[in-house]
Parts: sequence; structure tokens; C-alpha cells
Amino acid sequence: MTLFVGGDTGRWLVVSMSVVRGNALPFAPRLSIIEDESSVGDTGASTDARWTLRGVRSYVRYVERREKSLLDRLSPPLGRREATRAALIPIRKSAAWWDLPQDERRAIFEERSRHIADSMKYLPAIARRLHHSRDLGEPFDFLTWFEFAPEHAGVFEELVGMLRGTEEWRFVEREVDVRVAAA
Amino acid sequence: MTLFVGGDTGRWLVVSMSVVRGNALPFAPRLSIIEDESSVGDTGASTDARWTLRGVRSYVRYVERREKSLLDRLSPPLGRREATRAALIPIRKSAAWWDLPQDERRAIFEERSRHIADSMKYLPAIARRLHHSRDLGEPFDFLTWFEFAPEHAGVFEELVGMLRGTEEWRFVEREVDVRVAAA
Repeated sequence: MTLFVGGDTGRWLVVSMSVVRGNALPFAPRLSIIEDESSVGDTGASTDARWTLRGVRSYVRYVERREKSLLDRLSPPLGRREATRAALIPIRKSAAWWDLPQDERRAIFEERSRHIADSMKYLPAIARRLHHSRDLGEPFDFLTWFEFAPEHAGVFEELVGMLRGTEEWRFVEREVDVRVAAA
Repeated sequence: MTLFVGGDTGRWLVVSMSVVRGNALPFAPRLSIIEDESSVGDTGASTDARWTLRGVRSYVRYVERREKSLLDRLSPPLGRREATRAALIPIRKSAAWWDLPQDERRAIFEERSRHIADSMKYLPAIARRLHHSRDLGEPFDFLTWFEFAPEHAGVFEELVGMLRGTEEWRFVEREVDVRVAAA
């Protein structure tokens, strides 16, 4: 499990926190990321945390073989030396989304919104890791972490703007956008 | 979240516990089922529990629209007065399964193993509820709970036998079969 903790300490300095939709999160000056190998039930939050968001890396829900091959080849790793800017974007989707059967969610996600296909061109610049939170009973369904170099900040805006304009995003009922820089 | 607790108390009397594959669970004379609305981090196990297995009801991962319509129409509810026999079958699938992309898991699950299509004829007799555990860091990936009347015990054996013979089941690396009766 991965914990994203907003508080007074942490490697990442919070540059901005914006509410895109729904309720905000309290502002925190720093962000730390904790990889916790203990089971879900054992994990406590830091005492000075303004908020703690939990997620797990998990298996893919929509990606198909031909897409996986491309993603595996094109996705840069996290932790590149030049990637001193990052973003944590927690989102929650609506009950209407989760009630859809698999084929209809896939059709909206990819055939109509082209989430994978249209994100592909940003991959050499933007590193990305998805964490699943829904089954943990967390306030958000997904926590996506992005890392990029300062010169790719504009490219990153283009990526999030593109996603927010899709049909898929009509099902997003809460979204917060936390931008950070290596401290 | 739903907790299945094997211990000294509970509505269900354990009739048998069989290991189908992998490690066993310790024998417990009774089974209780607890619906817990608190968040994952807050949930503790009962003190007298031999084991506690946790899962969440979640969105469908493979079911498509036409299948969902049939399932919704044909699935009996839990808690039928005549359904005094039940089974809890926890399974874990292999890393090879979880590494497959969505289209290949779906093809094995349904196009080749006919998990949904071939289970359909058992639905009027057998009530079923799936709980997801994998993202919780639990020892099993799924906890399936079945309820049926004593006269359908043979039909239930046919259902589990059918599933265990499928290509999908080659990816099951741990399975325990807990049979219970209303006490």
C-alpha cells in the first residue's frame, strides 16, 4: 500500500492545491509518500498529517494486450533525476459509473474518450503511477501520481486538460489537483 | 466491508473445511458474518477468532451488459428461509493471472471457461455474493458466499465441480471450501 501524506514534513513542497470538482482537501505545506508493506488494517496515519490518502498498485482494469505492449515500452520510470515537478491527482467517480457493466465502462474509457491512446504521446515526458483506493473504503477511487521535468510543465497541463474534456470525466464527481516540487 | 469470522460463535455451524489447493485455514466450529461500515483501517478481528477474512462488494470486472441483465433477473436474494446450507469459498489466483491484460483475462474467464454462461442455470437454486479482497492485502483475492436449500446440495456440487474444471481455475493457487449449516 502507498500512503500520500499531506503535513509539515516530506520530500515534496506543495506548490498549489486546487479543487477541480467536489470537496477540497485541507492545505498542507509538504507531501510525503510512504510505501507500507504491512496489511491495510495495520496502517496508521502520521500524527501531524492534515490528510492521508491510501491506495494500492493493482492489476489493470481496462488495458488490453496491444495497449499494454506499447505502455510497457513507452512509460518512463518514476524517480528520474530531472523530474523535479510532480502532481498528485485524487479522483472519485460517481455511482452511475460504478454501476455500469465492464463493456460499457471500457467503451466510454477508451473507444470514446481515448484515455490510453491519447495519453500515449505524453509518456516519454510524463511518468505516471496509478493507485486504486475504492475497495479500501477511501474518500477517492484513484490516486494518480505524475512526475516530470520543469520544462514539461506545459505538456502536463495539456494532458490533464485533455482528460478533463473527455466523456469519461463527466463521471468524475470529486477531483483535487496537488502540485508539488522537489524540496 | 464484510468480515467472515471463523470462531466459537456465529449463526452458521461449520460442517466441513476442505483444502482444495494450497495452504489450509485452521478449523473453526462456527462462522459469523459481520457487515462493517467503518473504514478498512478501523476494523479489528474478534478476539476468539481462529481466522478473519475481509472482503468488499465491488463493481463488476468482467460482466457485460447482456450478461448483467440476465444475472439481475435470475439471481435469487440471500437470506431465503429455505436456504439453510451455505458455503464460503475463498480463492487466490496466481501472479500470472493478475499480470494478464484485461482482454486476455476476460477471454479465459468467459469466452473459454464460460464462467458466467455456465453458472446461469444454477442461479434459481444457488444464491451467490462475491467479495473482493485482493486490494486489501488479504491472503485471498475473492471470498464467494453461496446459499442454498438442502435439496440443492447436489446441484451445488455440480456447480463447484464445473468451475474447478475450467481453464480459469488453472490460475487458482489457493482455495479452501468451508461448508456450513444454519445452527
